[in-house]
Amino acid sequence: MTYAVAFRLESGLVFAADTRTNAGVDNIAQYKKLQLWRRPGDRVLVLLAAGNLAVTQAVVSLLNEHLAEEEAGEDAATLYTAPNMYRAARVVGDAIREARRIDGAALEASKLGFNTNFIFGGQIKGERPRLFQIYPEGNFIEATDDTPFFQIGEHKYGKPILDRVARSDMRLGEAAKLMLLSFDSTLRSNLSVGMPIDLVIYERDSFDVTREKRISADDEYFRQLSSSWSDALRQAFSKIEEFDV
Amino acid sequence: MTYAVAFRLESGLVFAADTRTNAGVDNIAQYKKLQLWRRPGDRVLVLLAAGNLAVTQAVVSLLNEHLAEEEAGEDAATLYTAPNMYRAARVVGDAIREARRIDGAALEASKLGFNTNFIFGGQIKGERPRLFQIYPEGNFIEATDDTPFFQIGEHKYGKPILDRVARSDMRLGEAAKLMLLSFDSTLRSNLSVGMPIDLVIYERDSFDVTREKRISADDEYFRQLSSSWSDALRQAFSKIEEFDV
Repeated sequence: MTYAVAFRLESGLVFAADTRTNAGVDNIAQYKKLQLWRRPGDRVLVLLAAGNLAVTQAVVSLLNEHLAEEEAGEDAATLYTAPNMYRAARVVGDAIREARRIDGAALEASKLGFNTNFIFGGQIKGERPRLFQIYPEGNFIEATDDTPFFQIGEHKYGKPILDRVARSDMRLGEAAKLMLLSFDSTLRSNLSVGMPIDLVIYERDSFDVTREKRISADDEYFRQLSSSWSDALRQAFSKIEEFDV
Repeated sequence: MTYAVAFRLESGLVFAADTRTNAGVDNIAQYKKLQLWRRPGDRVLVLLAAGNLAVTQAVVSLLNEHLAEEEAGEDAATLYTAPNMYRAARVVGDAIREARRIDGAALEASKLGFNTNFIFGGQIKGERPRLFQIYPEGNFIEATDDTPFFQIGEHKYGKPILDRVARSDMRLGEAAKLMLLSFDSTLRSNLSVGMPIDLVIYERDSFDVTREKRISADDEYFRQLSSSWSDALRQAFSKIEEFDV
């Protein structure tokens, strides 16, 4: 399983994904599930993936293959030729459909199915930053101010804190803190999500990524966050009146 | 869907279940998912159910039918003749297997499947209070001090707070408070779980239930709890240092 979450804020975008993959509990591995494409001054694009690793890697390989073809002069819509984020999201959707044409039938014939979800966001010159959740069918929805975040994978444990605190006018560092708390809850309750966490903060109109970090289990900030949060929750709990029928 | 949770504490047992059932989002109804059997001075038994309502009602009907047969003088193991909680849990397990013999094939032939989980707990004279989670197969596990609670149904949203705070030496009212917080998180994040909540507190060695309440959406304690908890979480959140790469 995977846990990945992204925010679309007035001041930019924040992305985070864990790195654990597993095929049964005795076969776990570490893979990067956050992909980053950038052309400084023009666009920054980030893709988070949850689901069958073979499928998500196929999608990324297809996207990169099309970029290479473009460089070789072939004429196709790619992540670098898309004129806006809506078109770029369609490029990702097309890659998912292409991956399904290749592997879908074999997967559907097994009990695995073709079941992969993506979060895709970024900024292309001329637009504000935009964020999408792309379904296994290749279609997608876009985040708005009403619901400024998307989650994929093992999303339930970490959702209550987001539902309570998330707002689209948060600062980037504040949103990153919130996402890490959401990860902390998930990591404690579900073994299939594991450290390190890949985190990317994109500042609006920067058209480059300068704030990017892989947060490992011994990261000082994360440990501090996790223990402060536990203490704060226990303290808050003890202050509330007991139930008395 | 359903959310139900129960605690096994040194001082007794606490049970809670929501009351919403749904067959699609446009067909919701209210049903009690908490069943209580008591013979004051001898035993108190509580059953919480999650899953297909037809199956859970069939199980309860079978259990009650066997009790009626017993009164009519027939010789069968029932909830009232079981000499201890282990045997009582087996009585429930047998009723689940009986329900499966009746309806299982038809359900498995559809996409529904036979998929119902139970929490069963109580105290029978001569033993301490005990708590079990009973699977659709009719077998079961028992709660211990290491993990003093069981959850069934839509359990993920409300698990992080339990994982952080639950201890088997909590007071009964403290555990009830914790369970209601866990419900609050679940209710906010998932539409298929709905008020009112049925709550039963069983005091060890009382062999009767005097603390029992149906908590509705306008319950003053619950509203207070919910808003205090939101405030406390936001406050705790704001106190933690922001992330700064």
